[in-house]
Amino acid sequence: MIRTTPYINEDFLLTDNLSQSLYHDFAKKLPIVDFHNHLDPSMISNDVQPENLSTLWVMADQYKHRAMRINGIPEEGITGNASDYDKYLNWSKTLPRTLGNPLYQWSYLELKRVFDIDSALNESSAREIWEECHSQIGSGKLSTVSLLKKFNVEALCTSDDLLDDMSVHKKASKNGAAVLPSLRTDSILDQSEAFNPWCDILEDLTKIKIKDLDSYEAAVQKRFDLFEDAGCKLADQALDAGFEFNWVDKSKASTIFDQFLNGERLTDIEAVSLKSHLLILVGSACSERNWALQLHIGAQRKTSSRLKQLVGGAGGFAAIGSSTNIATIVDVLDTMDKNGRLPKIILYNLNPVDNAAFASLTGSFAEAGVAGKIQFGPAWWYNDHYAGITNQLTALANHGLLHNSIGMTTDSRSFLSLSRHEYFRRVLCELLSTWVKKGLLPNDISILKELVKDVCYRNAKKWILNTKH
Amino acid sequence: MIRTTPYINEDFLLTDNLSQSLYHDFAKKLPIVDFHNHLDPSMISNDVQPENLSTLWVMADQYKHRAMRINGIPEEGITGNASDYDKYLNWSKTLPRTLGNPLYQWSYLELKRVFDIDSALNESSAREIWEECHSQIGSGKLSTVSLLKKFNVEALCTSDDLLDDMSVHKKASKNGAAVLPSLRTDSILDQSEAFNPWCDILEDLTKIKIKDLDSYEAAVQKRFDLFEDAGCKLADQALDAGFEFNWVDKSKASTIFDQFLNGERLTDIEAVSLKSHLLILVGSACSERNWALQLHIGAQRKTSSRLKQLVGGAGGFAAIGSSTNIATIVDVLDTMDKNGRLPKIILYNLNPVDNAAFASLTGSFAEAGVAGKIQFGPAWWYNDHYAGITNQLTALANHGLLHNSIGMTTDSRSFLSLSRHEYFRRVLCELLSTWVKKGLLPNDISILKELVKDVCYRNAKKWILNTKH
Amino acid sequence: MIRTTPYINEDFLLTDNLSQSLYHDFAKKLPIVDFHNHLDPSMISNDVQPENLSTLWVMADQYKHRAMRINGIPEEGITGNASDYDKYLNWSKTLPRTLGNPLYQWSYLELKRVFDIDSALNESSAREIWEECHSQIGSGKLSTVSLLKKFNVEALCTSDDLLDDMSVHKKASKNGAAVLPSLRTDSILDQSEAFNPWCDILEDLTKIKIKDLDSYEAAVQKRFDLFEDAGCKLADQALDAGFEFNWVDKSKASTIFDQFLNGERLTDIEAVSLKSHLLILVGSACSERNWALQLHIGAQRKTSSRLKQLVGGAGGFAAIGSSTNIATIVDVLDTMDKNGRLPKIILYNLNPVDNAAFASLTGSFAEAGVAGKIQFGPAWWYNDHYAGITNQLTALANHGLLHNSIGMTTDSRSFLSLSRHEYFRRVLCELLSTWVKKGLLPNDISILKELVKDVCYRNAKKWILNTKH
Repeated sequence: MIRTTPYINEDFLLTDNLSQSLYHDFAKKLPIVDFHNHLDPSMISNDVQPENLSTLWVMADQYKHRAMRINGIPEEGITGNASDYDKYLNWSKTLPRTLGNPLYQWSYLELKRVFDIDSALNESSAREIWEECHSQIGSGKLSTVSLLKKFNVEALCTSDDLLDDMSVHKKASKNGAAVLPSLRTDSILDQSEAFNPWCDILEDLTKIKIKDLDSYEAAVQKRFDLFEDAGCKLADQALDAGFEFNWVDKSKASTIFDQFLNGERLTDIEAVSLKSHLLILVGSACSERNWALQLHIGAQRKTSSRLKQLVGGAGGFAAIGSSTNIATIVDVLDTMDKNGRLPKIILYNLNPVDNAAFASLTGSFAEAGVAGKIQFGPAWWYNDHYAGITNQLTALANHGLLHNSIGMTTDSRSFLSLSRHEYFRRVLCELLSTWVKKGLLPNDISILKELVKDVCYRNAKKWILNTKH
Repeated sequence: MIRTTPYINEDFLLTDNLSQSLYHDFAKKLPIVDFHNHLDPSMISNDVQPENLSTLWVMADQYKHRAMRINGIPEEGITGNASDYDKYLNWSKTLPRTLGNPLYQWSYLELKRVFDIDSALNESSAREIWEECHSQIGSGKLSTVSLLKKFNVEALCTSDDLLDDMSVHKKASKNGAAVLPSLRTDSILDQSEAFNPWCDILEDLTKIKIKDLDSYEAAVQKRFDLFEDAGCKLADQALDAGFEFNWVDKSKASTIFDQFLNGERLTDIEAVSLKSHLLILVGSACSERNWALQLHIGAQRKTSSRLKQLVGGAGGFAAIGSSTNIATIVDVLDTMDKNGRLPKIILYNLNPVDNAAFASLTGSFAEAGVAGKIQFGPAWWYNDHYAGITNQLTALANHGLLHNSIGMTTDSRSFLSLSRHEYFRRVLCELLSTWVKKGLLPNDISILKELVKDVCYRNAKKWILNTKH
Repeated sequence: MIRTTPYINEDFLLTDNLSQSLYHDFAKKLPIVDFHNHLDPSMISNDVQPENLSTLWVMADQYKHRAMRINGIPEEGITGNASDYDKYLNWSKTLPRTLGNPLYQWSYLELKRVFDIDSALNESSAREIWEECHSQIGSGKLSTVSLLKKFNVEALCTSDDLLDDMSVHKKASKNGAAVLPSLRTDSILDQSEAFNPWCDILEDLTKIKIKDLDSYEAAVQKRFDLFEDAGCKLADQALDAGFEFNWVDKSKASTIFDQFLNGERLTDIEAVSLKSHLLILVGSACSERNWALQLHIGAQRKTSSRLKQLVGGAGGFAAIGSSTNIATIVDVLDTMDKNGRLPKIILYNLNPVDNAAFASLTGSFAEAGVAGKIQFGPAWWYNDHYAGITNQLTALANHGLLHNSIGMTTDSRSFLSLSRHEYFRRVLCELLSTWVKKGLLPNDISILKELVKDVCYRNAKKWILNTKH
């Protein structure tokens, strides 16, 4: 079971002197600014201890659920009534089948960094590794705050709904790393049956009676202010594959919103128009507060209706959607820009075929004094792996300015995923080294190290956190 | 004319010890399961001898026709009235111009494996090579059955129309390799003028009077049963670039089918609806018999009307079509899944930009106990080359589970194309070795060899041929 | 400031013996045929001297403007009222931020080849390099004609409007390189308010009263003849992202043209139909004269309205548009082909996701006796860099015949950009060498050198300039 040469060694992913030097001498030491994730801030304020390896590592991880499903594991043993241990055991059966998938690399990186385990995990070693981890968990050194320290996290931005409690982040920040909220704005644009109960709470919280678009906007803005007070630096909005945009003025949007509030069914074009109006509102609200607006573009969330019924809407079976209509994205950004209310933007694409076009958009809008006003965001979700990161960085370098990139964020629900900053940094250093070997970059460590520091840490710190420029 | 170092040597495409070891020690020896091709089963049952090098190698090969056309060869000398030898001579003039194209590599691989020829083929060496091959053909060792033995074929699945004779496959199987039919379902969905005469034969064969959708479905199912009896394991359906899907229920579909049978012109939406209904019918029929359904997606078959008139519909001048609407594919699969009748699926894409999205779809549907329910099929048609195979495998590894992949099939009309399994295996072994060098896989031959064996042979055998699981 | 090993050395981009040999022994010595650029022929006929480094190198270069904008430089200091020196200084601040972008490599290549400067350019070295270049410019050896000689230009084709003066090219050609016009046909299809004044000049120049489609076509054809007399070998037409095609016959097109001439607003479908008719007219006119027609496909020119107002329409902030509808391109080509009037075609795509499909289209139309009737044109605009060129060549090799490729053209407004032929040739030689190492090409310099010579020079000379075949 034990490999003689550990898979995760000091020079994991680093194949020559230059990449090793760039990583070990410069990248490795930098703190982490994880500007977009789905960590639970209350787990930090309460410094939660994990229950067992399954709850820590398997049971909340949709990537692993997905792999187990592909491998034919019954749902019962993934998200169903099986025991925590059996779910972990199913994962241990599946892990060897993930050879070549980022899950394989991430899993061994996490076992090594968090538990210092080099052994191969499979069905026959599962029990031994469970016991070893269990004893480490029992020792208390795996608390949430310990993990943040271990990974050298300086700041992280969680993803919060407009109605979420803004008091927890300050408490959490007392434990070390700055824990800042960021605003997930999808509920604001929602037109499903979930809107009405959500809107009722919004009324309660803001003490504003929502009777028309004006009062709705006022209530939303009031919550934006609360986020601002809590240190929020960014918002994010999902624009799923096939999304449309149709700008309408306030008067037209108000009419549609009245219909919507009255429970009338909107036509497709009305629905799009109202969403478009609210998206521009979100952009303006970000611009006024100098927040960045993240756009997560191109997911195909609707796939198997059967799995959705069985597991719920976000169960890890979404797909990469069709490529993005670039004219539509341009329309969104230009509408904000024409109003003088284009915030700093981070564009994320789920379909990697959009890489070149998205990278080129970084040169289509600009603001004096802002380096990198439009960011081509780090390889997102299914693209967060060696090839995906390499392709994102290459597209950005070719069509924009890599030196101004804000680098990596985890977008994860798991504290263990913070190890992916290490993964990203190793891939970046290796990529720069291959470029030097090809002649695309000069072989001059004095300039390469500045590039590494900017992309791994300094740009994110400056662009995201120092909101006044 | 003779090169001192042969181009096709033992380590063709293998650049280091690990890739060489993976290929020579493991991949090379495995039998072939070629689960989708267009070989003629009667050529196997009759153990046909080739007439000459041109009929064996040039005259039926649309890839070569295409290259000759690009090279400015008049159609007369490609598919026209020129002599067999002159067509071969035109190919020998064109081959040196294909440097960098898979045709160059395939052609030398075929000359080496089938005729043990290392010489460069060009206009000046054409006669000498023709004579050498002629004498080998005369010796009788190039019969169809000999070729299957030479390539170590264990099983192959031909592509047959619903009306084809199902007796020939069993006869063919007596000569060694299992020769199984597979059902090309395009005729079932056809709405061209070819449908009526085809339908007349269907009536004759099944003794079912086709007067409405019910009787049509009954006749179709009867032929499905005949395929099942003959050992059929798969169906396949082309969904050309721009295809649409609009599910309608049986009653609506019946009405449209009545109009169609009556020779009424269908509106676009009616045509799509009827096709969609029949596609779901095909999926259900596969699911009930535990066949896999192959979807060949994204060809742009309509290109030059002039060439079509001159050469016919399948003359090698099709193009790669626009990328696929992922929401539409999802709709097809989900409609089958909602009915509880989603068969095992193999998705093939002609436009490589669909690689990531198609690979991600392998995680969007699942069945307990079936590893790899949705397969991302091997690099298809114009993608079946070094870069195309590498990109397909990389996308699958990144977004799915490569270890569960059913690997390679030729999709070819030529028995010589069976050498492309060797090509695929070499590319796979080389790719795995590059991943080890990068650190993406552990350097552990005991686990890598299992991956090689699964992808090159065992998965196809199990997933395709062992239909009960 | 001075690096000890110059970044641009003899073996820039060449990493092994084979690539070095292919470049130094064969590619390097070949003359340049730059068959599509935006150089001003009067600058050649007048042998213009540059004013300073900023006018020569920075002030007219939209790529550099774009990078400066991304870097947050105020528009004032890019295209505004700042001094020539300050604009250069802003570029010197931005250049170090372009690490990894082709601008970095191009800029150092230009400084080296034109000024023999190896030093790093940044804010602190800016003044010293300005002075050095200033003294060289003063010496007179940087005149336009000197630059053409330095780069060994044999022929170049400028891009000219239908109304442009055709006398200047012959004068320019007396200074050495053949300077030929090529016809930019966008004005012919234009439907903006710029059409009427343009049409008035057309009337004046041709003495043909434009009162209907017939007279318009007659006037256009008369100018085509003038281009033909001046040695024109190609036309080019932009088909921006989202373009549509709807073929209508002459009678229908005439009706729409009458409406258009009368100032009536066209419906969308009318506008598309008229454009389509005129595009086919352009194709026919090229075919009759044996010109090649270049199609530049897929730009997203409409981005920031604010920047457009500030800087003008072609200010370097266009983006890569959505991928191309392949069925539409096929429709364009097939309509010409059906009429027997398909000219030689060069397809350029701005979105690299179209590479495979465009490369495959080279095999979808053919003409006896013409090798490479449909060309997949060199990596265009934002794709003209190491990865972009590599990807274009790889797609072409995989899906067509690289040996018949017409190779590289600059498409540039700058005489210094002629150094990009060197860049292209180095990338090509390096790529061929990597293919040899992988086993995709035989290690046989006698055949590789022919490939290099064909792609770098001979094919362009034959295919573009020798119009009779």
